[in-house]
Amino acid sequence: MRIGVLGAGQLGRMLALAGYPLANTFVFYDISGSPSVGLGEVIVDRGGEYLNDFLSRVDRVTYEFEHLPVSIAERIADVKPVHPTPRSLQVCQNREAEKTLFGELGIATPKWKIADSAESLRQAAEELGCPVVAKSNTEGYDGKGQAILRSPEEALEAWTVINHPRLMVEKFVDFSREVSIIGVRGADGDVAVYPIAENIHHNGILRYSLAPAPSVSKTVAAEAKRYLHAIMNELDYVGVLALELFDTADGLVANEMAPRVHNSGHWTIEGAQTSQFENHIRAITGQPLGDTTARGVSCMVNIIGEHGDISRILELPYTHVHLYDKAERPGRKLGHINVTAEHYDELIWRVRNCASFLPGVPEFRCSLAKG
Amino acid sequence: MRIGVLGAGQLGRMLALAGYPLANTFVFYDISGSPSVGLGEVIVDRGGEYLNDFLSRVDRVTYEFEHLPVSIAERIADVKPVHPTPRSLQVCQNREAEKTLFGELGIATPKWKIADSAESLRQAAEELGCPVVAKSNTEGYDGKGQAILRSPEEALEAWTVINHPRLMVEKFVDFSREVSIIGVRGADGDVAVYPIAENIHHNGILRYSLAPAPSVSKTVAAEAKRYLHAIMNELDYVGVLALELFDTADGLVANEMAPRVHNSGHWTIEGAQTSQFENHIRAITGQPLGDTTARGVSCMVNIIGEHGDISRILELPYTHVHLYDKAERPGRKLGHINVTAEHYDELIWRVRNCASFLPGVPEFRCSLAKG
Repeated sequence: MRIGVLGAGQLGRMLALAGYPLANTFVFYDISGSPSVGLGEVIVDRGGEYLNDFLSRVDRVTYEFEHLPVSIAERIADVKPVHPTPRSLQVCQNREAEKTLFGELGIATPKWKIADSAESLRQAAEELGCPVVAKSNTEGYDGKGQAILRSPEEALEAWTVINHPRLMVEKFVDFSREVSIIGVRGADGDVAVYPIAENIHHNGILRYSLAPAPSVSKTVAAEAKRYLHAIMNELDYVGVLALELFDTADGLVANEMAPRVHNSGHWTIEGAQTSQFENHIRAITGQPLGDTTARGVSCMVNIIGEHGDISRILELPYTHVHLYDKAERPGRKLGHINVTAEHYDELIWRVRNCASFLPGVPEFRCSLAKG
Repeated sequence: MRIGVLGAGQLGRMLALAGYPLANTFVFYDISGSPSVGLGEVIVDRGGEYLNDFLSRVDRVTYEFEHLPVSIAERIADVKPVHPTPRSLQVCQNREAEKTLFGELGIATPKWKIADSAESLRQAAEELGCPVVAKSNTEGYDGKGQAILRSPEEALEAWTVINHPRLMVEKFVDFSREVSIIGVRGADGDVAVYPIAENIHHNGILRYSLAPAPSVSKTVAAEAKRYLHAIMNELDYVGVLALELFDTADGLVANEMAPRVHNSGHWTIEGAQTSQFENHIRAITGQPLGDTTARGVSCMVNIIGEHGDISRILELPYTHVHLYDKAERPGRKLGHINVTAEHYDELIWRVRNCASFLPGVPEFRCSLAKG
């Protein structure tokens, strides 16, 4: 099948690498002007002139990047099947719509309010009780467009810094760790869910994902699974969806979701029977979903900004290197390494050893190894 | 690194799929006129006019197909590094040179003679003792250009059928099974060897590879390893090399080798820590070799001629489907399925179940399950 991908970065690249073996071909549609996908045909179209050309060359369309105008997705949906649906895109682009949906589906979230001025931000902070996190209601990702208010008096400064007309203000959640759960829904409504991953961020960017997350109770696992089922069924979703959550003393609290393959699911390439990329392709092409069971335990380590000593990392027998073939730049995701093991204690020293060859990576501390 | 591949079929395709994640790009050079690789840039050049153009676009060259004129490989080696070396190609293209090398390195082979006429074929058959196998000395693969002589009187017919000026005549070997061993040698001379695979052929075409082969004694494993080391060191080889062997009551007897990634190594994609494809790319780009340890047990099932019911196969949680995106044609390799398991008994029923959805595949009978 000829698959059109909106966006042309590393996620599209990994979708293609997983999709070719199932006899698919790929055309990428890039509006950024700097595609990095490195394989398949790329149509760079900053002015929107070549959209019809793109559509004429593909059988169906998906995306690897959800921050594109919903109007484009809707225009496409009139011509070719698009998965996930434009509605999914719309909900994920808008924190208010997302949190509202979560509420309707009985999914726990932090307490939240909307602010549309410095004064209403101050009021929201006061009513919710500080600390609160203010986030631009749209267009924010990877920790951009966010500020933490330790007291309502910081409202004016935060408003100025974020510089966005509408903010989502959330009461700070007291969590023990950040986790995510990734699921996939097939064209026939079948749903498969990966084990929960434990995510370690640094400066707002994901650095490590450990999967399956250690010490997840059956209740918590069932809760996360129910959340994903509810969201995907409600949105009549087809493809992979990622849900980021806070693990708290009172159970899981939803943070945000992404309507696509997700950085916290890269471990599935070697760490699960079927990768998130292959399952997304299977779903959108109407094939049966693949097994989401983990193979042993694994940890994904992001390569950010600088490549470090890749040759040394390739020497380690338990690493799997995935480079995106991008130039180095501070804060840029350049690749990731999947470290695999049979047991957690083995995994922990392997991850630390691997990370020692990467510059600027924070020490690996997960819920198992805080010391 | 920009890698040029001579040949543009499924092996090149899988080399590319393994090579992109290590930040390589691929250009394929096709002299057949019908490339099927389906990704990367392909230069189709039946007349040899675009060789310089091809070479100008790549940093080094390898091949996925050894039946191309050695003169081309030599012309290339004058301009760009080529791995494996043209000498390796030459030896592998010529059964006499190959068997002579095996003999020099102390590698057991069937007794053999060269025949250059119907009469000398008759004589060879008589001296070796029938049955014998006669094979065209060059240009034969996948069971083509071969004949079995049950008595010397069949020489004239065999000579006529094979229709080649020079034949390798081998005494029939009484073997319990066919196996292969795949190794990789790095640019620094480092060697890594995969576990032996047990191969089941049907009508001269590989149908199943089971790995690690069951019931391999330490002595036999060490012998196979020594063979590979000897060959690769002698040829100053860089890349993956496959050696096909007969397992006999007197130990391993070498059949033939291939200077490239090999169908009997496709199981390594999910069945080993590092695939043969990734290891070939690592070797020719001067990177450290990856771990060749098996992950559980696995079996590769070739898809030949017809695709069968791929959707049903995708439903099985223990299958990994690798399609080559080629049109169906009798005897054509269209893809393969890797079946994985923890134990052999589990593997056997899984393979049989998987094979039941493929048309015309012979029943799976390995050394473990002859009954």
